Amino acid sequence: MRRHDLLVLGAGTGNALLDDRFASLDVALVSEGPFGGTCLNAGCIPSKMLAATADVAEAVRDSARHDVDARLDGVRWRAVQERVFGRLDADSREGEQGRRDSEFVTVHRGRARFTGERRVRVDTEDGPLDLAADRIVIAAGGRPVVPPVVADSGLPYETSDTVMRLAAPPRRLVVLGGGYIAAELAQVFHAMGSRITVVEQRDRLLEQQDESIAEAFTEAVRGKWDLRLGRELTGVAGSPGALRLTLDDGAELTADTLLVAVGRRPNSDRLALEKAAVEVREDGRIEVDDRLRTSAEGVWALGDIATPVPLKHVANREAEIVAHNLLHPDDPRTMSYHAVPSAVFTRPQIAQVGLTEQEARSQGLDYAVGMRRYEDVAYGWALEDTTGFCKVLADRADGRLLGAHLFGPQAATLVQPLVVAMTAGMTARALAEQPLWIHPALTEVVENALRELG
Amino acid sequence: MRRHDLLVLGAGTGNALLDDRFASLDVALVSEGPFGGTCLNAGCIPSKMLAATADVAEAVRDSARHDVDARLDGVRWRAVQERVFGRLDADSREGEQGRRDSEFVTVHRGRARFTGERRVRVDTEDGPLDLAADRIVIAAGGRPVVPPVVADSGLPYETSDTVMRLAAPPRRLVVLGGGYIAAELAQVFHAMGSRITVVEQRDRLLEQQDESIAEAFTEAVRGKWDLRLGRELTGVAGSPGALRLTLDDGAELTADTLLVAVGRRPNSDRLALEKAAVEVREDGRIEVDDRLRTSAEGVWALGDIATPVPLKHVANREAEIVAHNLLHPDDPRTMSYHAVPSAVFTRPQIAQVGLTEQEARSQGLDYAVGMRRYEDVAYGWALEDTTGFCKVLADRADGRLLGAHLFGPQAATLVQPLVVAMTAGMTARALAEQPLWIHPALTEVVENALRELG
Repeated sequence: MRRHDLLVLGAGTGNALLDDRFASLDVALVSEGPFGGTCLNAGCIPSKMLAATADVAEAVRDSARHDVDARLDGVRWRAVQERVFGRLDADSREGEQGRRDSEFVTVHRGRARFTGERRVRVDTEDGPLDLAADRIVIAAGGRPVVPPVVADSGLPYETSDTVMRLAAPPRRLVVLGGGYIAAELAQVFHAMGSRITVVEQRDRLLEQQDESIAEAFTEAVRGKWDLRLGRELTGVAGSPGALRLTLDDGAELTADTLLVAVGRRPNSDRLALEKAAVEVREDGRIEVDDRLRTSAEGVWALGDIATPVPLKHVANREAEIVAHNLLHPDDPRTMSYHAVPSAVFTRPQIAQVGLTEQEARSQGLDYAVGMRRYEDVAYGWALEDTTGFCKVLADRADGRLLGAHLFGPQAATLVQPLVVAMTAGMTARALAEQPLWIHPALTEVVENALRELG
Repeated sequence: MRRHDLLVLGAGTGNALLDDRFASLDVALVSEGPFGGTCLNAGCIPSKMLAATADVAEAVRDSARHDVDARLDGVRWRAVQERVFGRLDADSREGEQGRRDSEFVTVHRGRARFTGERRVRVDTEDGPLDLAADRIVIAAGGRPVVPPVVADSGLPYETSDTVMRLAAPPRRLVVLGGGYIAAELAQVFHAMGSRITVVEQRDRLLEQQDESIAEAFTEAVRGKWDLRLGRELTGVAGSPGALRLTLDDGAELTADTLLVAVGRRPNSDRLALEKAAVEVREDGRIEVDDRLRTSAEGVWALGDIATPVPLKHVANREAEIVAHNLLHPDDPRTMSYHAVPSAVFTRPQIAQVGLTEQEARSQGLDYAVGMRRYEDVAYGWALEDTTGFCKVLADRADGRLLGAHLFGPQAATLVQPLVVAMTAGMTARALAEQPLWIHPALTEVVENALRELG
């Protein structure tokens, strides 16, 4: 059994944690999947590259709104894929090679599972390999959930891991699920020419967003996608490429492709964590404290396998905390999940930070709402936008921002001043009145929503 | 002579100053030009609406970069104008009517000039009208400068006041000047199909921007526009629609339209300010203190006629200060020009706040530079951007942000977190490390430029 100073499980954010500050240690990195993890290979990055391509196609389709006459002849899907995955797959390979070349890290490929406290066995191509380490960081990610009705059907299905690499856009794509991954991928394939049907148990898409956003998004896509809301998938039959899907209202859908996007779960069930005394929560996340320590001495966890907020920028911040705490045990830092922003790269685009209105209400907070529409500000006129808005929530007592929600072009960029202000504890009024806001930039929709709070 | 409590000269930002807090006063408003001033009628707003339309056309032209096959058939210029000016002219008329309907304001149309201290004569359609007031706010704006070589030629020319209302885009448009107004309008007409020549005395366009921005913008348009840099216009001949323009190197240009965009000057020379003991600076701006009081008791000034930064969002802030100081003479507020952002709505888009690098250098500051390119971050990959960047300057001693400069998509939105941080006196490091920045949003280019400062 080889003994290391530090063992990292996972080559996504876990790999990014290992910079030169660890060069004096003997480190091992174990990964089952490709380097770069979900984000680079099947998550944030390719989906955003495809979403931006979809945006270009949709902008051509919408050009008449600006009195521009243009025709969309088509999107060259194979060229798009080569552009996107040619780059990302090379990045992943180079990431692995760079790590293999590093002086202080040994790389092992294969699935790892614990065999005891701070001991793991890796199933490598060359057989099992036993490793021990003084300290271990678990960053082994998560994976799409596939419900039994699909998994047990024996028929092919796609997930976010595979659908972006299909050889051609489906003609008829049924998307199971209505969260942000489902929405982004439906958006992409709609732009590529697929006919989209979305089957979602709840009555709205993006139900975890602020209720105004969920409502507006559902309305925005209702005319473009066939929405089957409040419905469950009860049967999958037919044959590959000619699926027959049955819903709980008896409706039958035909599809050449089924995309399952009902959620993700942590990979904690694959690590035999019980052997290492690493406690796991009921929802599958590894239990960590605010220094990101697990219940087992010398074992940390971060990213999708442990975090309450499975987003890459959160994992990156967690990795900074873990790296610091490994290097400075006497001066530990703690992780905060206050003011975590997120975005959905649909069209309209969506971004949020802090509480949704339904959360503020259910927490019994005394809050004020400021809302401005893009069409209320000059740059919204320039964009000919008719559906976008900015909604901000503030505490009535002290004026502090509780949350902010954006729906429309540049939402993921517009949210950042609100994130800065929330992180710094600024009041809504101070954020509106102290800095200047360019006229006529799109940022005025944020300024004016804040001013509406009074 | 009619005596008012308050007299406002100018129906742009001056009109916007008059809210219900002044309802107990007897107020007169005098304006020569249309309500809404330069911004609404011939400035920020129509130029941005046209720029956004140009962006759509250029996005179609660039669509192959995303493997999207699209064809631009044309831009319907008259439809664009009707959409833009149909809306804005109506807004201007409604603004005037709304003011005429207000209980406490009397509106007079015509040019005003001072006849004594706090006395003016207005040349109305019905003859001269003499007014006196306890307090006066001068917000009479500015106008394009037209050099004698053009003005004296007797041949027609356009300025930003007129060019957006041309019946058709020129076939060959010569733009005199290389500042932001010249650049934005050249960009618009290029997208509409005009062949653009720019004649500029300096060796770069946008010379007032940070040197990296000026350089990058000049390079970005060099292939699209015929640039005559370091050149002066020495002669204007020919006939209307067939102009022959001579440059100081002997070159001769033909053009159907000449756009003069060499700068703007305050309208202070048209008000007989010497009669009112209102002092004017050598550059034509009315001299004001930090409460925006002129040298004459009871006379304030704001906006393009007085400000060091002739931008609408600055004028709006000045109007807030003047309104407050009129209403609360015992609790005056002062105007700050620290951290004033601005944007140029070209393609690539440009935004800035604070010092340029050449300013920091000439002030002898000890500064650090952080620079990241859009193509260094994932959303830049998604946009297939190859020219954009974010450049930040910080004080080496205390880490405070001195300035920030953006070149590329969404620049005017991306700059806002930097404005918030500079206004609040945050260090570059605090701005990078305290808030989270969404991955992979375009805001990462800002985060990473900040992190490069170390």
